[in-house]
Amino acid sequence: MSITIRTARAGDGSILHAMIRELAIHHGYEKDFVAQPEDYEVFLADPNAMNGALVAEWNGEAAGCATWQRSYQTFLGRETMYLEDISVLPAFRRKGVATALLKAVARLAVARKAAAVSWIMMGWNTEARRIYEANGASIEDGTCYCKLSGEALERLAS
Amino acid sequence: MSITIRTARAGDGSILHAMIRELAIHHGYEKDFVAQPEDYEVFLADPNAMNGALVAEWNGEAAGCATWQRSYQTFLGRETMYLEDISVLPAFRRKGVATALLKAVARLAVARKAAAVSWIMMGWNTEARRIYEANGASIEDGTCYCKLSGEALERLAS
Repeated sequence: MSITIRTARAGDGSILHAMIRELAIHHGYEKDFVAQPEDYEVFLADPNAMNGALVAEWNGEAAGCATWQRSYQTFLGRETMYLEDISVLPAFRRKGVATALLKAVARLAVARKAAAVSWIMMGWNTEARRIYEANGASIEDGTCYCKLSGEALERLAS
Repeated sequence: MSITIRTARAGDGSILHAMIRELAIHHGYEKDFVAQPEDYEVFLADPNAMNGALVAEWNGEAAGCATWQRSYQTFLGRETMYLEDISVLPAFRRKGVATALLKAVARLAVARKAAAVSWIMMGWNTEARRIYEANGASIEDGTCYCKLSGEALERLAS
């Protein structure tokens, strides 16, 4: 039994969509999840995209994914990498897939000369916390995620 | 007395540095602030940079700044904008500078067809919360900011 990580490529939109949708539901954001598989094909087909994804396979079967994007931290004055999602399908949990994806993201960051990898975790997610801490991540509690979108964004911009 | 917002340009590295360093100190991150003014000149001079900044002037004097970067939200399947910093120098606080910067960021987001603007706020920052809520932002408490950098990143990547 083995885990393989590969770069997501054109045509992977549907499997990424299924995995990230699963993650959205698990986090209680089903109503905020409006992406369609073809939306992901846009960046998957673009060699200059600012974002990308990795797919984890368990014995050749798609088991999970990580999506990342270029980022920048003004405190460092350098480009970094932002990890948007790590999702592992229920049937493949507790097999080390999330750790393998996190390790692959770290390797990609080093290869891209990104100074850091950062991401957001929900405070209640003790299982994720355990995995991240076991892999050396620092975790800062007490932050808030703020957003302007839709009508609120239009109104402020007007 | 008036507030003007302009795009940061080559040569603004020093004023951005002073303002963002002030923000870092105010948030207790002085030791994490290692950027140098010349680091910022790299993106300021690059018309294709994935990040940028706005400068607020109070009667022609640099009073504050906002730094932003291109981002992407997989739940939306669309490009968005991430607001990294809003900083207002102490002498210019409580004059509406932060709100003017937030409004300018919203306008830039709409102009760039970004589907949303998102950012992170520290939970204790009640003054920032008041300004963001007054301007229509949604704020979600209970998130954690996670990071891999330096030796921890190298170790996981090895």
